[in-house]
Amino acid sequence: ILFLTVDSISSKNVLIIIADDAGFETSVYNNTVCKTPNLNKLAERSSIFTNAFTSVSSCSPSRSVILSGLPQHQNGMYGLHQDVHHFMSFDGVESLPKIIHKAGIRTGIIGKKHVGPETVYPFDFEETEENNSILQVGRNITNIKLLVRKFLSQDKSSPFLLYIGFHDPHRCGHTHPQYGQFCEKFGDGSPGMGFMPDWTPLTYNPDDVIVPYFVQDTPAARRDIAAQYTTISRLDQGIGLVLRELEIAGYLDDTLIIYTSDNGIPFPNGRTNLYDSGITEPFLLSSPLHRSTWGMEIQKLVSHVDIVPTVLDWFKIQYPQYELLHNPVILTGRSLLPLLCNKDRESEEVIFTSHNLHEVTMYYPMRSIRTKHFKLLHNLNYLMPFQIDQDFFISNTFQDLLNRTREGISTHWYKNLKQYYYRSQWEFFDLSTDPQERINQIKNDKYTEIIKYLKEQLHQWQNITSDAWICQPQGILENKGYYKNSPHCFSAGYGV
Amino acid sequence: ILFLTVDSISSKNVLIIIADDAGFETSVYNNTVCKTPNLNKLAERSSIFTNAFTSVSSCSPSRSVILSGLPQHQNGMYGLHQDVHHFMSFDGVESLPKIIHKAGIRTGIIGKKHVGPETVYPFDFEETEENNSILQVGRNITNIKLLVRKFLSQDKSSPFLLYIGFHDPHRCGHTHPQYGQFCEKFGDGSPGMGFMPDWTPLTYNPDDVIVPYFVQDTPAARRDIAAQYTTISRLDQGIGLVLRELEIAGYLDDTLIIYTSDNGIPFPNGRTNLYDSGITEPFLLSSPLHRSTWGMEIQKLVSHVDIVPTVLDWFKIQYPQYELLHNPVILTGRSLLPLLCNKDRESEEVIFTSHNLHEVTMYYPMRSIRTKHFKLLHNLNYLMPFQIDQDFFISNTFQDLLNRTREGISTHWYKNLKQYYYRSQWEFFDLSTDPQERINQIKNDKYTEIIKYLKEQLHQWQNITSDAWICQPQGILENKGYYKNSPHCFSAGYGV
Ligand SMILES: [Ca+2]
Ligand SMILES: [Ca+2]
Ligand SMILES: [Mg+2]
Ligand SMILES: [Mg+2]
Repeated sequence: ILFLTVDSISSKNVLIIIADDAGFETSVYNNTVCKTPNLNKLAERSSIFTNAFTSVSSCSPSRSVILSGLPQHQNGMYGLHQDVHHFMSFDGVESLPKIIHKAGIRTGIIGKKHVGPETVYPFDFEETEENNSILQVGRNITNIKLLVRKFLSQDKSSPFLLYIGFHDPHRCGHTHPQYGQFCEKFGDGSPGMGFMPDWTPLTYNPDDVIVPYFVQDTPAARRDIAAQYTTISRLDQGIGLVLRELEIAGYLDDTLIIYTSDNGIPFPNGRTNLYDSGITEPFLLSSPLHRSTWGMEIQKLVSHVDIVPTVLDWFKIQYPQYELLHNPVILTGRSLLPLLCNKDRESEEVIFTSHNLHEVTMYYPMRSIRTKHFKLLHNLNYLMPFQIDQDFFISNTFQDLLNRTREGISTHWYKNLKQYYYRSQWEFFDLSTDPQERINQIKNDKYTEIIKYLKEQLHQWQNITSDAWICQPQGILENKGYYKNSPHCFSAGYGV
Repeated sequence: ILFLTVDSISSKNVLIIIADDAGFETSVYNNTVCKTPNLNKLAERSSIFTNAFTSVSSCSPSRSVILSGLPQHQNGMYGLHQDVHHFMSFDGVESLPKIIHKAGIRTGIIGKKHVGPETVYPFDFEETEENNSILQVGRNITNIKLLVRKFLSQDKSSPFLLYIGFHDPHRCGHTHPQYGQFCEKFGDGSPGMGFMPDWTPLTYNPDDVIVPYFVQDTPAARRDIAAQYTTISRLDQGIGLVLRELEIAGYLDDTLIIYTSDNGIPFPNGRTNLYDSGITEPFLLSSPLHRSTWGMEIQKLVSHVDIVPTVLDWFKIQYPQYELLHNPVILTGRSLLPLLCNKDRESEEVIFTSHNLHEVTMYYPMRSIRTKHFKLLHNLNYLMPFQIDQDFFISNTFQDLLNRTREGISTHWYKNLKQYYYRSQWEFFDLSTDPQERINQIKNDKYTEIIKYLKEQLHQWQNITSDAWICQPQGILENKGYYKNSPHCFSAGYGV
């Protein structure tokens, strides 16, 4: 059956392009300042999703979701994969590259991988930070172009999945400050910065940038955003090179292309948060078989958990039947291809998100359910402050917020740090009237019914996705011995 | 050099016996009720350490310390290894079995392993829960005897290290309630329980057992302790069988034997705590080369981190020079062999302990320093309640405490649950006057100087052992980019 499947789809390929910490800095999403001609061109042959969400706003967890279709708590990648953090997915996870390799499709990854173990996420062709410098495979677009060319030329007979993990526009001040806050100088040809022939850096005046509502409008933040825009120009031109390679190799008209970003932008209230500012993502889906929807916006709520079902649908491959930790694994995402035929999704539009940690010291599990109009957010370690990661902490933007707060002068921010650090166990937002999530309505009687309903839905989803945190923070889960066939939450009596 | 080393010690072997959750239920440590004739016999040919401590009171983390010589935060085994927890040591850790295998010593493990990854903890001979039922390799003492016989008979020419992980006297009600709270019925010959020919179960009247000061004196707790004692009889007779095999094979007089337990007993204030009730361990060191100290008590403070240096000293093997996460690795433990020659240890007697999690949902990092007279304890997630694990939660002892608390009747316990759940960030105890750690003296001016000194020592040790939590809970560690060569703790401003 598998070989038959492969034969029937031998001319259909998939290209997944993941930006690192990118947001909506493109005119595709109405940012008229940051120039992205190549993304614009891709958008012209894509459906443009205006309500796409990551499953978790942290790098490795998000990539594990993109590649497994399972939320981080279900696949085991609870936090970052590298260094002291060294989180890993469960050995038994059937990931996308594993499943489609078995179906005879050639798989390749170029750039940032940031997931493991290797046995769970194997690719036939791997040029990543594990065998290269991350800057060379993630930011040097000339090198990326050549690697794509190499992959595409190696085997012209099999269909393929190529996953490209750009490291742009990730911050850089934490690890490589010599290249600037966003590595915006890396390879720009100035003294000591190296040179990549394919990149023409675009520069911006901080006065001109567009400051998102969740970032303070100060000179320090504007300078960071201007640097971010310059780095976006490298990402954008890299995407142009990749698409050109695809075209030269003759695959442009039989390849499904997905462009998105792994998590929210590295600014206050962005990355590591489950607020909309942390989880909304650019999302382009370019299908040569669905030209009628090219350039059109799709407002349906979609999630990164939909990527695996979409790719399997494209290749007409079934998700395997198996168990993880003695529980059957069911994908909770859905293929996006029917949306390109203007077919409505049958069920209610609901997005779930799940975060445990980012760095291993940043324990702050959160679970959330979001509909078109409402968001319910559960903070499990809520008595401790929300943590700031190393990378963001030393950024000029955050230091600016911290210093202004300490000096007691205006932060020009829509929150204050005390609010940001100390959160309620439950947060509920009415997005119709409060899209910026400023007012926690959890105690507003007006919403009692919808809150109750969303809590039930969230619990049910935690159950289906084998969430070990399902009883937290007040309860103890018992699911072995007597409770093997009927898992139960017991009150720990913390209120005694 | 390595081969010369091996030749010179070809008749010296090591046997490490690890009990699972055992305490001082033996007349070796003055418990006159629980009968342990085989441990007594081993003690007659051992030095008996009366101030021995685990490095962390949780199973996998503790075993990772025993086998690596590095505290859990340094080796990466932050919590339990199995199921959803799936914590692992860092790939680069040079573990004891790895180091001594390279020196030509044959390594074997029988019973509970509970650490990983396999590449970090490889043994030449492995019969563990990974390729057997844990009950059969950890509690079936007839089977354990035969596996020891097999290991000892396979190669008579090389020196060996044999590590035996008994699963007794671990609780059982959580996973196999059909065998009783402590698996005390498993293999006892009664209907449905199976039979192991080598075990003669000893039973106890709950009225007769000795209730430790940190356990409530109630009928429920006494019944649990009586069951625990019966399971201790299986451990004890298993140890007798193992030693008999060693003797028959002719190794009794050239084998260094270590007996200890991985963590505190699974009773309130025991396992998962860094109070003395959670970290003091039985510890017997039997050296055929040091007969003059047989049967003698040694009161020096020793730790599980001393096991690796002791075994390397015995085999005369150097610990390798290498780095973990770009930091040089230095063992902080010391060989115990000089103590058997009545040689004093040069430096001050200080014990450090380090805990992060047990189950993955139980985030409660703690760091502690203990001298003969004082203990300083740092609770990093202190605003949230201390968590109860699944195994202990459904035990009769804990349910008894919880129910008594809810009903408002006397718990007969020396603490109350509210105290137990909610801890101060810093705890300081004067063990000379308060050995049961009842009175937190952190704010007592009398101790200002010693507290300051111990905080400095603790911080220094966290630094030497590359503790990623070193700046927690108020600070952010920066150790990359500009701070690569001068790591720094920055205040996160959580107090703003
Ligand atoms: Ca990212
Ligand atoms: Ca244990
Ligand atoms: Mg990242
Ligand atoms: Mg255990």
